[in-house]
Amino acid sequence: MAQAGCTLCATEGGIPVFRCAQFRVIRAEEAGFPAFYRLIWHAHVAEFSDLSPAERSLCMEAVACLEIELRRALQPTKINLAALGNMVPHLHWHVIARFDWDTHFPAPVWAPAVREADAPALAAVTQQLLALDDAIVRSLAAMPKAM
Amino acid sequence: MAQAGCTLCATEGGIPVFRCAQFRVIRAEEAGFPAFYRLIWHAHVAEFSDLSPAERSLCMEAVACLEIELRRALQPTKINLAALGNMVPHLHWHVIARFDWDTHFPAPVWAPAVREADAPALAAVTQQLLALDDAIVRSLAAMPKAM
Repeated sequence: MAQAGCTLCATEGGIPVFRCAQFRVIRAEEAGFPAFYRLIWHAHVAEFSDLSPAERSLCMEAVACLEIELRRALQPTKINLAALGNMVPHLHWHVIARFDWDTHFPAPVWAPAVREADAPALAAVTQQLLALDDAIVRSLAAMPKAM
Repeated sequence: MAQAGCTLCATEGGIPVFRCAQFRVIRAEEAGFPAFYRLIWHAHVAEFSDLSPAERSLCMEAVACLEIELRRALQPTKINLAALGNMVPHLHWHVIARFDWDTHFPAPVWAPAVREADAPALAAVTQQLLALDDAIVRSLAAMPKAM
């Protein structure tokens, strides 16, 4: 059920990448983090444990699928996964490729920046995003969705 | 295999709460966040997708189990889940009970604080931790661990 006033019930939440019956994946366009994706569960639930075990399994296999494609395409220093939802309590998973040259590494993206942006390195990642989006779509489309 | 120089291979990583063949749960003692737990996978793997699908399922059902017990005991405003590992690239999940009165809410715990600590509210949570630890142990011990 859509919740009145919930941004993720009312809007796509970012650049659409993939959609199936249970969830969608968007690219987040967060400045300085080009490979920042979100998996957004369609139903308005606040917490991961509001899902059934079968739904949790589908959700996290999809998160792992995203992670695998980000690693394959970009060889990031680290992947960061998080479900916070303090501002928008509608279940969504942040899946973020982190690089040792990014503005915040090794701090979390929510901490203060520790260095200036590396424009050429950012451009090199950005150039790969459309191919990465395609790989994510192929990989998520091939995932078993039965629950 | 233990990795030389890895803190989570060499140490427990916090106050021990639960241990089974695949993972352990510790309480993190992060100032201002009494109900801050970590699930630490014993094997030294950096990324969630380094686990097999069966291992991922066990890992996330255990995370959900922790979340359920935190919600039941503390009725937090929100649960925050994260696997970052930028500083210590050994798979661990942060499971954090967040409250609208805590020093950082609604910001992530890694962002700058937005208010002073509420000592009586913190003390009220702290008082429940031993009973919560016990509930977590009972719940995790009852979980199927077959993979």
